[in-house]
Amino acid sequence: MRGGESAVLERIEKAESRTGSRNSQLRLGIGDDAALWIPKKGYELVLTCDWFLEGTHFLRDKHPAEAVGWKCLARAVSDVAAMGAVPRCFLLSLALPSVQSGAWFDQFLRGVRRAAKRFRCALAGGDTTRTKTILINVMVVGEVVSGLEITRSGARPGDILFTSGRLGEAELGLELIRIGKGRVDSRDPVLKKHLYPEPRIELGRWLAEKRLASAMMDLSDGLSSDLPRLCTASGVGARIISEKIPAVRVSRRLGGGYSPLELALHGGDDYELLFTVPANRLRQIPRSFHGIPLTAIGAITKKPTLLLVDEDGRGLPLPNSGWDPFRNS
Amino acid sequence: MRGGESAVLERIEKAESRTGSRNSQLRLGIGDDAALWIPKKGYELVLTCDWFLEGTHFLRDKHPAEAVGWKCLARAVSDVAAMGAVPRCFLLSLALPSVQSGAWFDQFLRGVRRAAKRFRCALAGGDTTRTKTILINVMVVGEVVSGLEITRSGARPGDILFTSGRLGEAELGLELIRIGKGRVDSRDPVLKKHLYPEPRIELGRWLAEKRLASAMMDLSDGLSSDLPRLCTASGVGARIISEKIPAVRVSRRLGGGYSPLELALHGGDDYELLFTVPANRLRQIPRSFHGIPLTAIGAITKKPTLLLVDEDGRGLPLPNSGWDPFRNS
Repeated sequence: MRGGESAVLERIEKAESRTGSRNSQLRLGIGDDAALWIPKKGYELVLTCDWFLEGTHFLRDKHPAEAVGWKCLARAVSDVAAMGAVPRCFLLSLALPSVQSGAWFDQFLRGVRRAAKRFRCALAGGDTTRTKTILINVMVVGEVVSGLEITRSGARPGDILFTSGRLGEAELGLELIRIGKGRVDSRDPVLKKHLYPEPRIELGRWLAEKRLASAMMDLSDGLSSDLPRLCTASGVGARIISEKIPAVRVSRRLGGGYSPLELALHGGDDYELLFTVPANRLRQIPRSFHGIPLTAIGAITKKPTLLLVDEDGRGLPLPNSGWDPFRNS
Repeated sequence: MRGGESAVLERIEKAESRTGSRNSQLRLGIGDDAALWIPKKGYELVLTCDWFLEGTHFLRDKHPAEAVGWKCLARAVSDVAAMGAVPRCFLLSLALPSVQSGAWFDQFLRGVRRAAKRFRCALAGGDTTRTKTILINVMVVGEVVSGLEITRSGARPGDILFTSGRLGEAELGLELIRIGKGRVDSRDPVLKKHLYPEPRIELGRWLAEKRLASAMMDLSDGLSSDLPRLCTASGVGARIISEKIPAVRVSRRLGGGYSPLELALHGGDDYELLFTVPANRLRQIPRSFHGIPLTAIGAITKKPTLLLVDEDGRGLPLPNSGWDPFRNS
């Protein structure tokens, strides 16, 4: 970690001390060359990092700074949750234009702090520099009891495919912000889902501890992009039933331009968990977990193809239209 | 970690499998939501991250892609070395313009791979996305025997201040590249120091294991910027002797425009170790370690000021002109 950016670092340090998320395993935080972390016996570490870039992942003039701060951590934490692990600490790499170091930065740090507290994930350090556009990279360290982690590669034919929550909500929230319908009211559920996503930490941990899921990942790019990744990693296919997919509810006031199914299939940023459950564990999956619906949307197949069964019972190839920054280039 | 960028990830994965730096603690690498790391008993983890941005830290048209790959890892590894720790694995976050995904990217990955092998640091994962300019963030996990780490805060009055290597070399190398004197010949020592810096991993580890240093940091922004940080963290001052500073040797063919002392004081990117040694350990510090000179350049003082003693024995305040991206704004 570089320390050249004293004023910025000092403000981050202050934010850190107010997160209330410090913990005894973080023996040394911001201010030295690196942070020191004491691993817990019997646990493995889960390491992940995530970009959050102005223009690509958020818009400076559309997204509240506080939401940017919250979401940059939430996204990375979601990857930890997707392993059945619990987030423990994070490094925040921040590059800012000089004009961004005032009120925007305060609001941003408030969002980071709120998220850190909510996810019980301590700020351990980071690196700051200057740029023309806002660049954020978050690296999270999580912990999972050795051997209990849930990877993408364990799905087997016959396993039932589940998703948490409702899909497409975050995409609809983004759309509302894009078209600028009214002011940003983050109490609106779809806006909240887009601006302040809640990684499914407790659900992921519960599935891991109870050994209920054979494979798991988080839905970040959309079901149609992410499901193929789980299937590829597991060497299987899947058959999903369009009617079963818990799609976003589109309010009438938005008009008829939005298809709930399309949003649910291709919308990104939901950070729900997609997981597979072996038949003999099905009974242990409740309809909802801490108020979050858990829905069976299909099954894993031996044949490595992805079928979407429509309301007439026809199976069509699942179109892949989720988000991939390297496509359409 | 996001997996949306399949083609890019595949090439990184191939690079990973050729690094020869895999190790048994990295139980799961690229390809899932996160990497899994098994901590070693009796060790603590050292966590650090570092930006490496086009325009700020390197120039696309001046710096060979292979050097960019090498240096982005070397910089972050240097922070680990500065704690007396050994690098073990890293996450690579990469944002590229689409035009950069061909030959440039191959060369870049070759540099990353070479560095990973040299530093024995395994690629554990990362995140890729697209942008207009090249953005790199590297997060390194290191290990140190519990309690042996060397922080910045342990310097005490009377301790002797040491630096490894020669200072100002990397800055002169950058200058040669900037003015474009001849072709880039990376065998030139100052160019090599700028393009392919060698973090002082073995030296850091040795100082930690022998408990020889009371405080340590790496010189990344320049002695005049970094020494104040060590002193502030330790609550002390320092007095350095200009004649003792092992400054870069400036070749005559460059003309008289370069002051070795100025380069040594304010030049960044050397990645040498700055460390303090209690008087009773001085005898155990050799003149060089594995061919790298170790030079006493001054002493730690109780008074929290920084003095540079010139050749006439006058102590003047140390001017701070090192690199800080948030200054001069």
